[in-house]
Amino acid sequence: MANLVEAYAKTRRFSEYLCETLQVEDYVVQPMPDASPTRWHLAHTTWFFETFVLAPSQSGYRPVDSAYQVLFNSYYNSVGEQFPRSRRGVLTRPSVAEVFAYRRAVDERMARLLREVDGDAAEEIGRVVELGLQHEQQHQELMLTDLKYLFSCNPLWPTYRPSEDDAPAATTDDSGWSTHGGGIVKVGHDGGTFAFDNERPRHDALIGAFELQDRLTTVGEFLQFVEDGGYRRPDLWLSLGWATRKEQGWTAPLYWVEREGAWSQFTLGGLKPLRLDEPVCHISFFEADAFARWMGSRLPTEAEWEHAAAGVIPGGRSGMPGRFHPIPASPVRGASRIRQLYGEVWQWTASPYTPYPGYRAPSGALGEYNGKFMCNQYVLRGSSCATPAGHSRSTYRNFFPPDARWQFSGMRLARDAQG
Amino acid sequence: MANLVEAYAKTRRFSEYLCETLQVEDYVVQPMPDASPTRWHLAHTTWFFETFVLAPSQSGYRPVDSAYQVLFNSYYNSVGEQFPRSRRGVLTRPSVAEVFAYRRAVDERMARLLREVDGDAAEEIGRVVELGLQHEQQHQELMLTDLKYLFSCNPLWPTYRPSEDDAPAATTDDSGWSTHGGGIVKVGHDGGTFAFDNERPRHDALIGAFELQDRLTTVGEFLQFVEDGGYRRPDLWLSLGWATRKEQGWTAPLYWVEREGAWSQFTLGGLKPLRLDEPVCHISFFEADAFARWMGSRLPTEAEWEHAAAGVIPGGRSGMPGRFHPIPASPVRGASRIRQLYGEVWQWTASPYTPYPGYRAPSGALGEYNGKFMCNQYVLRGSSCATPAGHSRSTYRNFFPPDARWQFSGMRLARDAQG
Amino acid sequence: MANLVEAYAKTRRFSEYLCETLQVEDYVVQPMPDASPTRWHLAHTTWFFETFVLAPSQSGYRPVDSAYQVLFNSYYNSVGEQFPRSRRGVLTRPSVAEVFAYRRAVDERMARLLREVDGDAAEEIGRVVELGLQHEQQHQELMLTDLKYLFSCNPLWPTYRPSEDDAPAATTDDSGWSTHGGGIVKVGHDGGTFAFDNERPRHDALIGAFELQDRLTTVGEFLQFVEDGGYRRPDLWLSLGWATRKEQGWTAPLYWVEREGAWSQFTLGGLKPLRLDEPVCHISFFEADAFARWMGSRLPTEAEWEHAAAGVIPGGRSGMPGRFHPIPASPVRGASRIRQLYGEVWQWTASPYTPYPGYRAPSGALGEYNGKFMCNQYVLRGSSCATPAGHSRSTYRNFFPPDARWQFSGMRLARDAQG
Amino acid sequence: MANLVEAYAKTRRFSEYLCETLQVEDYVVQPMPDASPTRWHLAHTTWFFETFVLAPSQSGYRPVDSAYQVLFNSYYNSVGEQFPRSRRGVLTRPSVAEVFAYRRAVDERMARLLREVDGDAAEEIGRVVELGLQHEQQHQELMLTDLKYLFSCNPLWPTYRPSEDDAPAATTDDSGWSTHGGGIVKVGHDGGTFAFDNERPRHDALIGAFELQDRLTTVGEFLQFVEDGGYRRPDLWLSLGWATRKEQGWTAPLYWVEREGAWSQFTLGGLKPLRLDEPVCHISFFEADAFARWMGSRLPTEAEWEHAAAGVIPGGRSGMPGRFHPIPASPVRGASRIRQLYGEVWQWTASPYTPYPGYRAPSGALGEYNGKFMCNQYVLRGSSCATPAGHSRSTYRNFFPPDARWQFSGMRLARDAQG
Repeated sequence: MANLVEAYAKTRRFSEYLCETLQVEDYVVQPMPDASPTRWHLAHTTWFFETFVLAPSQSGYRPVDSAYQVLFNSYYNSVGEQFPRSRRGVLTRPSVAEVFAYRRAVDERMARLLREVDGDAAEEIGRVVELGLQHEQQHQELMLTDLKYLFSCNPLWPTYRPSEDDAPAATTDDSGWSTHGGGIVKVGHDGGTFAFDNERPRHDALIGAFELQDRLTTVGEFLQFVEDGGYRRPDLWLSLGWATRKEQGWTAPLYWVEREGAWSQFTLGGLKPLRLDEPVCHISFFEADAFARWMGSRLPTEAEWEHAAAGVIPGGRSGMPGRFHPIPASPVRGASRIRQLYGEVWQWTASPYTPYPGYRAPSGALGEYNGKFMCNQYVLRGSSCATPAGHSRSTYRNFFPPDARWQFSGMRLARDAQG
Repeated sequence: MANLVEAYAKTRRFSEYLCETLQVEDYVVQPMPDASPTRWHLAHTTWFFETFVLAPSQSGYRPVDSAYQVLFNSYYNSVGEQFPRSRRGVLTRPSVAEVFAYRRAVDERMARLLREVDGDAAEEIGRVVELGLQHEQQHQELMLTDLKYLFSCNPLWPTYRPSEDDAPAATTDDSGWSTHGGGIVKVGHDGGTFAFDNERPRHDALIGAFELQDRLTTVGEFLQFVEDGGYRRPDLWLSLGWATRKEQGWTAPLYWVEREGAWSQFTLGGLKPLRLDEPVCHISFFEADAFARWMGSRLPTEAEWEHAAAGVIPGGRSGMPGRFHPIPASPVRGASRIRQLYGEVWQWTASPYTPYPGYRAPSGALGEYNGKFMCNQYVLRGSSCATPAGHSRSTYRNFFPPDARWQFSGMRLARDAQG
Repeated sequence: MANLVEAYAKTRRFSEYLCETLQVEDYVVQPMPDASPTRWHLAHTTWFFETFVLAPSQSGYRPVDSAYQVLFNSYYNSVGEQFPRSRRGVLTRPSVAEVFAYRRAVDERMARLLREVDGDAAEEIGRVVELGLQHEQQHQELMLTDLKYLFSCNPLWPTYRPSEDDAPAATTDDSGWSTHGGGIVKVGHDGGTFAFDNERPRHDALIGAFELQDRLTTVGEFLQFVEDGGYRRPDLWLSLGWATRKEQGWTAPLYWVEREGAWSQFTLGGLKPLRLDEPVCHISFFEADAFARWMGSRLPTEAEWEHAAAGVIPGGRSGMPGRFHPIPASPVRGASRIRQLYGEVWQWTASPYTPYPGYRAPSGALGEYNGKFMCNQYVLRGSSCATPAGHSRSTYRNFFPPDARWQFSGMRLARDAQG
Repeated sequence: MANLVEAYAKTRRFSEYLCETLQVEDYVVQPMPDASPTRWHLAHTTWFFETFVLAPSQSGYRPVDSAYQVLFNSYYNSVGEQFPRSRRGVLTRPSVAEVFAYRRAVDERMARLLREVDGDAAEEIGRVVELGLQHEQQHQELMLTDLKYLFSCNPLWPTYRPSEDDAPAATTDDSGWSTHGGGIVKVGHDGGTFAFDNERPRHDALIGAFELQDRLTTVGEFLQFVEDGGYRRPDLWLSLGWATRKEQGWTAPLYWVEREGAWSQFTLGGLKPLRLDEPVCHISFFEADAFARWMGSRLPTEAEWEHAAAGVIPGGRSGMPGRFHPIPASPVRGASRIRQLYGEVWQWTASPYTPYPGYRAPSGALGEYNGKFMCNQYVLRGSSCATPAGHSRSTYRNFFPPDARWQFSGMRLARDAQG
């Protein structure tokens, strides 16, 4: 289990690394029901290991603190009662220090367990630990998006982490389309390495020939949509999207700020002038869909996206780790035109989040991980600048409701093959 | 255009036939935002012909009443302002008599136009008139579902139309599964006759081998789910469904009433004892999905449903017209086991309502008919006891949000092919 | 009981007179929770006689229709269940014709009872019948205000009753102040004739010397407030009033309509140009209070109003019955300067609606008439153009929440005695 | 100004004393719109001195931080924009340490100003400083009530401050009535010492002879009301109170907890068994009013309360400072029977909060302190265990809406003089 021990330590450490620039106050607040306090993320990910690894591994297991069983259960009905999600921000105790102590206590127990366990139990435990680590990585991204939302509510525009040097300007825009034939293709994860249940079973899907924009949609392109009155034309929007736009008063992507005719955007590095060559970010499915319609184009299906990404190895950005903000596309190099699949912004697809043919949720509490959310959400593919390293793959299915904007969500266009 | 003239007259008459048992008061009220007043349905379907047929056919067209342009526009942004949907029930004028006068005025103008038009114009007009008639048929079904909801709010349980003799009891339940091979199948309408834009383009779809319940799910089956605590077990429900169930206090299908241990249901013929052999009705997608999970089964996709129904001619029920309540399945006869595809209850599928590959909404106002609603809704297939004759076909895509219950919506189960 | 029999007949007839211009549709709709359908008013006032007079007068009384006991109970918890107030508009049955039949049935039973009863029972019944008639008169005014609100929601601006000739223009405005000394004054009804429980007991109150505007505040005065930015200056408003103004988007009194720079107002006679010499009407307490502050003045207390009105006999307007719209003040004539105390608009006072010293609600269901509403409401004094003849007196306490605007509510100013 | 300098230092210190047991997390959260975070109270009271004392005293005054002008303005429209009240809990910056630094910076500037100022300016500044200190004392009480509410939302029941020894049990209950003659009495503050504008002008009021309970209503008495079904009997409640009770699900005072048949209450010292001899606390006006009705009694008016309290010097409790929980009445000693007027719980009166005759709000921003809240609130008299020393007087008018329960609010009964 040596690899696992190391992976465990590394992932757990990274959660705490993300907190290094925070003040105690920043851990506590829930600025909207969807954006949980950092202290809750830190505790909930720990609760996951305690509940699904430690407790089952030992009869008569005594929890670190029995109250935490309820407080830090997110939504697992099978595990018991949950503290209401929208009220996570009214809890000031256990304190941040106590939450860190909880993490240490569980980490020690985990270390002992992983050292001692062997045989069949080791395999089973290994599987759940791996799930727990992937789970914690998901929450690492949420910690960043939730903090960004929190700080954006403050007129002082607090800076989460000063940004390093700016990305170099994209020189010329060599954007084009990546062409793909149709037919029966394989979709879903083929096993061997870790994948969530919702990526399986691998199955055949039928797609037509199509083209995919070979970089992400940019701020500059989206700004033209804004300036062309895109937010004032109901014909461009889904009916539900138009109603949401009106009710929420959307006139531009989330975090865009117009002052005296100049556009800025709020980032984790503070308020910055809008850069036209960057990928557009913090748009809802509704905005992505309306923009695509305005372009006379459409969003890709998730099968198309996965098929186009099938051969590409998810590499990180060269340099600029910890920038937590998307950067412009590099020039096309080599055989594959397609760029920015991973590590910049999640890409909305046209696909509602549904079970794959033959999908069955696992039995028991862990079966509540994915399946029960397969309703009124859309799939996003790729990964973002806030996604931890090693958490990207072509079969990954992220999902959010069509009005969600606080994730690092952007888009790339697709269209049916021309001629 | 003789056929069209006749079809026009017949369809328009049928809307008024449905009103014969109403009192003036019944035409006016909107018991919830989704259930429009009958007088609005009568006027809106008339507005459709005036706006999309009469007005474009004559330059300088003078409307019957210019105020009606706003009052009876449902949601066509391109046509102009709309009176708010949720406020349709505050209008007491134009009166019911004036609405009927509006119908007659438009019918006369339509009759004159259809008599006089010819050539290319006739063809174009014919297409829109046909759309208008299909549109009116859709509203005929809504008139019934909206009146049923309205009357159900009244503790006096008013009777819309006394039911004729009860359906004979289903003798023995010879229910089974209809088996279908997988592969690439054709989905969508192939032209030739009328279809909505959302049924096109006809395209290839890939499905696996599957089995379909050869009759509808019955009240008796669903009652077992109720009595087994199906409404108290979160593990059976989608997360959003469970939240809805709690918030709305659902403990059984809509219109089921339990009093002193005995179950009744409210029907358009009044309050009746629950009949176990009837198809279950007035369930949401959430309930259909939870029931299927409880059965260890699933809902069919719309492609599966359409494939299974491909060879079956939508026949009406033999006898019992105007009963407006589903009846038990007849015994299996002949080669095809599959029964009750049409004319009893709409059947929820597992398919979110999305555009078919290559779909484009028509340009202009009529493009607002279907496409913009393709979000957060599910497809229902078949037709119901409230669907007008001639309005059923295997490619028909009905759609409602997953929490809708006031339609005649039921279900049949599906499962992957066994062994 | 002959007088009572006649009074009964006359009052009951007047309710039906008010309905003569209605279409069936107009009886049914509830445009907001506070504005009940006309059919409900007609039935509820009848229910009152059946419940509080007929039923107790005869053991084993059989109600005209037992379902009506619940349907037409407004808020009498002691009498039993009530159909929810905000849902009165979803009932289309009993029909309007059936409600009129209910009225006739109860009227016949009442006629028989009043003919036959004598002795002590007659006295007790006489008291309750008188209360029932006063109650019906209150609902006659509500029928008018609720219909006005209903019609105002319709962009067709339906006319309830064409207005007769316009009132003559007020020639010169001879407005001034009526002066009153302070000291201990009598407040409340002294018995002898009918009064509601909330007008009693008559008691001493201490007031300072004060002056009262000798006519009502006019449209012209209020328009100056509007044009001076009165609806944009928070310093003029109570905190709760300002919050309400913002939330409701108030920019002028209810029913005022500005189109291309010209002001109109919606009346029961249709849309009319604003007349500057008329009393301002359909303002909330918040607006009255803000206007008074803008004038450097204040609203009178109810004790001040009653004291000033003590000697004035509530006369009706000369002529113009059934106009249902306030008219300008006549010139001062004779000794008393004070005009328009009655018959134009109810006048907001500065007094929260509280029990008089020593007040006790009657026991039993009729004790729910007034006392339990003594919270978060303000007293209005006088009477309005919609108040039935004979329903005005100086001790009368009308009351509404401070944000209510759909009543015929206006104001007159007061100030402490000068020098 | 030496006294003022000392008073300033002492009051400012006490705010910080109240924070000594807090963790940083506890300062930040706003558990409901009415309960502000502690850090906001600390900053807002400081903002008050900066805005109303420092800034006007020096032309070209440079604020400690200009952003704080908006962030910590509570509701003074005249001073400019305000950060929305209900969003105070989304701010994590300025941090708690920065807020304390803000306090120190303002305290230093204030110290310098108070040292240097003299003449007329000194007098004017002295008046505003005194107001600022009274204002800070009000917020000291709110800090306690808001923290109590915050901690009560946490299932861990955090302890604000361990309670010292319990109060001794009340031996025998020698409760009775204090009798008072009626007539014209003086109400309001007569100047000389500090009072808020709403306590003035002193004026004559007319009251009848009355009796006042000579101690506070106890937990034991209120428990009988609970057990007698007081929360299930609409006849005991105001209509608005009953609606609130149902909507909020009240079944006992706030913070009472029933578990397995035993009652506890949450206190600032943690969860404690209910003590029958303590004053009942954390009840709304609606509950106080219903309880009084159940007792066949009533609440006192504020004039009655003030008259009865006129001769009593507001003494603190002997001993038990910082207990922040009300204690039982001591036995009657000496001439005056009346006990517990101050320092235990605020006492709801029957009086809506209205301006005294002749009241005028001060001009300028400080005029927004009291007057604009005189609507839909009720007056409470006395003071509570959370009121700072020196902040009690017989003319003090506290006020809250009738549904407020999170203050230390209780009651004592009154009745008209017997015989």
